[in-house]
Amino acid sequence: MIQFKIEPVNRFIQPQLQEKINLKTKPLGALGRLEEIALQIGMIQGTLSPELKNPYIIVFAGDHGVVEEDVSAYPQKVTFQMVYNFLRGGAAINVFCKQNGIKIKVVDAGVKHKFESHPDLIILKVKEGTNNFTRGPAMSIEHVHECLKNGARIVDKIRKIGCNIIGFGEMGIGNTTSASALMHIFTGIDIQECVGKGTGINGDSIKHKTDIIRKAIKNNQNLDTPLKKLAAFGGFEIAQMTGAMLKAAELKMVIMVDGFIASTAFLAATLIDPDISDYAVFCHQSEEKGHKMMLEYMNAKPLISLNMRLGEGTGCAVAYPVIQSAVVFLNEMASFESAGVSDKEDILVNA
Amino acid sequence: MIQFKIEPVNRFIQPQLQEKINLKTKPLGALGRLEEIALQIGMIQGTLSPELKNPYIIVFAGDHGVVEEDVSAYPQKVTFQMVYNFLRGGAAINVFCKQNGIKIKVVDAGVKHKFESHPDLIILKVKEGTNNFTRGPAMSIEHVHECLKNGARIVDKIRKIGCNIIGFGEMGIGNTTSASALMHIFTGIDIQECVGKGTGINGDSIKHKTDIIRKAIKNNQNLDTPLKKLAAFGGFEIAQMTGAMLKAAELKMVIMVDGFIASTAFLAATLIDPDISDYAVFCHQSEEKGHKMMLEYMNAKPLISLNMRLGEGTGCAVAYPVIQSAVVFLNEMASFESAGVSDKEDILVNA
Repeated sequence: MIQFKIEPVNRFIQPQLQEKINLKTKPLGALGRLEEIALQIGMIQGTLSPELKNPYIIVFAGDHGVVEEDVSAYPQKVTFQMVYNFLRGGAAINVFCKQNGIKIKVVDAGVKHKFESHPDLIILKVKEGTNNFTRGPAMSIEHVHECLKNGARIVDKIRKIGCNIIGFGEMGIGNTTSASALMHIFTGIDIQECVGKGTGINGDSIKHKTDIIRKAIKNNQNLDTPLKKLAAFGGFEIAQMTGAMLKAAELKMVIMVDGFIASTAFLAATLIDPDISDYAVFCHQSEEKGHKMMLEYMNAKPLISLNMRLGEGTGCAVAYPVIQSAVVFLNEMASFESAGVSDKEDILVNA
Repeated sequence: MIQFKIEPVNRFIQPQLQEKINLKTKPLGALGRLEEIALQIGMIQGTLSPELKNPYIIVFAGDHGVVEEDVSAYPQKVTFQMVYNFLRGGAAINVFCKQNGIKIKVVDAGVKHKFESHPDLIILKVKEGTNNFTRGPAMSIEHVHECLKNGARIVDKIRKIGCNIIGFGEMGIGNTTSASALMHIFTGIDIQECVGKGTGINGDSIKHKTDIIRKAIKNNQNLDTPLKKLAAFGGFEIAQMTGAMLKAAELKMVIMVDGFIASTAFLAATLIDPDISDYAVFCHQSEEKGHKMMLEYMNAKPLISLNMRLGEGTGCAVAYPVIQSAVVFLNEMASFESAGVSDKEDILVNA
């Protein structure tokens, strides 16, 4: 079974980083969250002059057996159709990545479709869709291990080509149902708080989706480890994301965490190794119902909140320039001394 | 006296824009605030394919007589020192603008310092600092007119070189005191809710700042027009921003509204011509105390909220890529039809 060795970030450098931030030509703390992100990335990279290099977003796609239960507003074939859309550059994630200089790879983690090879597609298909988890686990424990390994392998390769900041997105009709079940089983939060409209269901359909998850929980008992929980309700794309995130932290990369589904994968990762948290920037608070509470559960503060609920990694791609802003102020702003601007001590002298 | 002729935005195009947005390969409404911004900019420009061209941020600097009353954590000379910092490229606004491809001009609207000429500095100085408004108006009504005209003149020139999206920032030791007084007098909101820590005062100093504003309000009565209110408590940089914003709306430019001080200038502009509101994107909710309530008063939803409280236009510069994201998704994303992705009707047929 794959193991991850995540080291804590470099806390020794924190006082020097904080001093560098404080000497910039601005009132103390006036750059708010950007100062926190600058400090975090400095500690991840163990340097006073961190850099963001060769950013990537990896979009994992997988199908879900539970769609048989009529839980989504869209038919299952939309999963593979959207993969083609990613490969042709027409999806939201493509245009945001292009805008912000981020490269994309798409992963077939378990789509119910046979793809031809394509330079931007990585085929690491576990199986053509998970089992319907209302009748037992979505996948076997061996499948979970395979997913963790696959995700890790992808990140390892991307790291080797010079990437040090990476985001993860997903596509999979039915995967908010999977993520809601996982959120409940990982956190103990009431199921109703974990279920939202996904791609756009409402009213009775949300009630139906909730009932389906309740039934699934009855038929999946004795889940005493995070991996068994992932096996019971996960998607292949979710489990591969979990492995990818753990590997990214092991390799000291900045992890951009997207919305509801990606955060569920991250939550699974924190249960496998809590040290991963120091490497994560939570990019966007999704409009999908459970996300706010899941972020609170993890003590995570999202960077932006634009009422989006699309997945694909779009929250990471749109928030990326804000993360860049944190790094550029740390590296490029003048200090009080270099700019010849009065600082507080000067006031004391001249007041 | 200068007049502004602001036309309403093009509402006739709204249904077509909304349809274009709805046909993109994503669930209805899934891009949240980005969809609202795309719609707004489409209506401002009267086109289904809006573009952001040659973005600028204009930073207005001015000094404030009220600093005599010891209301700021920094000495007055920091205003001119920061102007030099802007011109040398070392301030926060410089590095964020450089990051995001935004050009900067700095305006001496009334700094207590004589500047040499510089290619990025526009000298439209009304006077070397306002009067101390605890003893009567900060400036004359003629000064307000001059400020509105100056601000308008700058925007007119910037428009002529092809800019269609413009943000406004400010620098002026003492100007949160000015803005807090204006917020109170424009909205009627209790003074205590309008006063915050500015560059970093707290406790007793905030109480002192509040008392100073109370005294100023006693000594400035019969303020029955927005211009008289601006004259009583304004700064030259605030009044020039007001004129600049009104002109930008007249010229159908997208106006990026920054934090507490810039929003006060915008509030003044809405009282002169409420039609300006359709042209504004509120970029960032400042950490400065009064800003949240001021935005609510104007029914304004800020795009991002990063706990920053720096001014200079930094909220605009950091939020600009998010505004770009709205435009690129509208222009570049595939539609369900062009991508061959199933839409809802397809479900009805195939369910």
